[in-house]
Amino acid sequence: MTSRTDVLGLGNAIVDVLARTDDAFLVAHGLAKGSMRLIEEAEAERLYAAMGPATIISGGSAANTIVGIASLGGSAAFVGKVKSDEVGRLFTHDIRAAGVSFDGTPAADGAATARSFILVTPDGERTMNTYLGACRDLGPADVDPEAVRAAEIVYMEGYLWDPPAAKDAFRKAVEIAHAAGRRVALTLSDSFCVDRYRDEFLGLLRDGSVDVLFANEHELKSLYATADFDAALAALKLENVLAAVTRSEKGSVVVTRESTRAVGAHPIEKLVDTTGAGDLFAAGFLFGLARGAEHDACARLGAMAAAEVIQHMGARPEVSLKDLAAESGLAL
Amino acid sequence: MTSRTDVLGLGNAIVDVLARTDDAFLVAHGLAKGSMRLIEEAEAERLYAAMGPATIISGGSAANTIVGIASLGGSAAFVGKVKSDEVGRLFTHDIRAAGVSFDGTPAADGAATARSFILVTPDGERTMNTYLGACRDLGPADVDPEAVRAAEIVYMEGYLWDPPAAKDAFRKAVEIAHAAGRRVALTLSDSFCVDRYRDEFLGLLRDGSVDVLFANEHELKSLYATADFDAALAALKLENVLAAVTRSEKGSVVVTRESTRAVGAHPIEKLVDTTGAGDLFAAGFLFGLARGAEHDACARLGAMAAAEVIQHMGARPEVSLKDLAAESGLAL
Repeated sequence: MTSRTDVLGLGNAIVDVLARTDDAFLVAHGLAKGSMRLIEEAEAERLYAAMGPATIISGGSAANTIVGIASLGGSAAFVGKVKSDEVGRLFTHDIRAAGVSFDGTPAADGAATARSFILVTPDGERTMNTYLGACRDLGPADVDPEAVRAAEIVYMEGYLWDPPAAKDAFRKAVEIAHAAGRRVALTLSDSFCVDRYRDEFLGLLRDGSVDVLFANEHELKSLYATADFDAALAALKLENVLAAVTRSEKGSVVVTRESTRAVGAHPIEKLVDTTGAGDLFAAGFLFGLARGAEHDACARLGAMAAAEVIQHMGARPEVSLKDLAAESGLAL
Repeated sequence: MTSRTDVLGLGNAIVDVLARTDDAFLVAHGLAKGSMRLIEEAEAERLYAAMGPATIISGGSAANTIVGIASLGGSAAFVGKVKSDEVGRLFTHDIRAAGVSFDGTPAADGAATARSFILVTPDGERTMNTYLGACRDLGPADVDPEAVRAAEIVYMEGYLWDPPAAKDAFRKAVEIAHAAGRRVALTLSDSFCVDRYRDEFLGLLRDGSVDVLFANEHELKSLYATADFDAALAALKLENVLAAVTRSEKGSVVVTRESTRAVGAHPIEKLVDTTGAGDLFAAGFLFGLARGAEHDACARLGAMAAAEVIQHMGARPEVSLKDLAAESGLAL
């Protein structure tokens, strides 16, 4: 059976509420810069009231990646849970308008569609405060076996371990994908997320659930509980996966059992907002992989997509990444 | 009585839904580039479904101006009507977070908070499609006499002639302001708006209701029903008002009965989205005026504020205009 979709993504369906702030605000509110923390509705209300004027743009880590793949010219689908509220309609509009197939039924009642309150400091770093809301209702029933079988790669985010039943959806997707001869990719999402689920994530690598792994330096060090990047990299080499480790302006490292290759970052003019950098790197890499490109070419495409998204507010591309790839001589 | 507020603005409370598009989309949907047209809910739904991924940022012409005044370090207040829905809460949060006093009671029922679907073409031009919704409920009862008396300048938008009772709110504010020795400023808003209410707007200039007038070239030509800018300018000189006419990259012209002075535009690096250019020019000009600056200095401050807002998506400043004025040597 040939695949009709390059990548199917499974993740939390979140709308971002982005505001510029300063470091003093983060300190005053006890927020760890660069991290993602989960908050309940009352804290969401309190934080929103305290933060500055906001820009609202659809987000969600895996959802951003999937939109990036569509922007690169790929065929992409997303599975995630929204409620049938204003914010849910916004998420649905945006992902479909980006050319992504998104067919799930919104929840008629229960918690509101998820929002992430993202504070962007002058250094471009983003600090995320996520109210999961309707994402907590994502479960195995949302995974359509046909859609999984149709995808060359199934991509999932570590954040799926936060809501209660999403990991079961994840496991169901893994089983179907592998039975159909497809590959499964995972992003570690966030170093605090790795802290919460270290053993389970290591288990996914070692029991063959995951074929392709995305992590940044912090997440990789957290995975192996070490402060030493080289030690973490050495441990990673022993896992039987293809891994892409992102290192911000230092580019990325593509690791397999057989080789470790460094690929440079893509040049930028001005760093505005790092929100979505890892998501878009994954988009470029996965699109390349789905289309059979060499690992280096995948990493260069990832770096290009990340470079676009960190030069403006919001985690989704503002221009056609397909055109950008052509202009950059990176078209596949 | 001394004023406690630099500027009180009265306008339509609108949240902008901005999406990039191309000229073919405008043509296919019969939209006149650069204009604002009013749409009903069904058309709003249809257009939203057809347009691309969107960024949501609070807007509204006079509201943007008032936010600009606060960003310049001024004391500012806004009167407008939202519903107590998600979009209304968003508008309220953003304007208050910008430091503006906004105390009106949201409508508990009736039409939804207003949205403007704004299509931005690659040349940076914006084409607006506005669903007025809850703005239709703005009326004289929303004008607090004390708040009007407290403001050095009361600023209103021509768009207030669109909803049914807002012009009555406008007239009430004029009466109170003038009785308290305050000044009244009006923007003509849009050339199509001038087409709709030409005689009434000319009446406001000639019966002494308006002391300060803002218009762009197109609006001024529409006001005097002429295709010749110099003829329109000559007609304007005969009105007994202080007028600032904006001319995009050609800067502005400050006109009184006694003099006509051209002031250059502020340099920009890259035009991204003209949404809010006129609104922010008015912000700088009014702030200068409220603080007793010379007309030329007012126009330079207006040009600076407009230059900031056209270099990013959305019609509200992304940086402190007070800091920008200090850096540009334009602080008052």
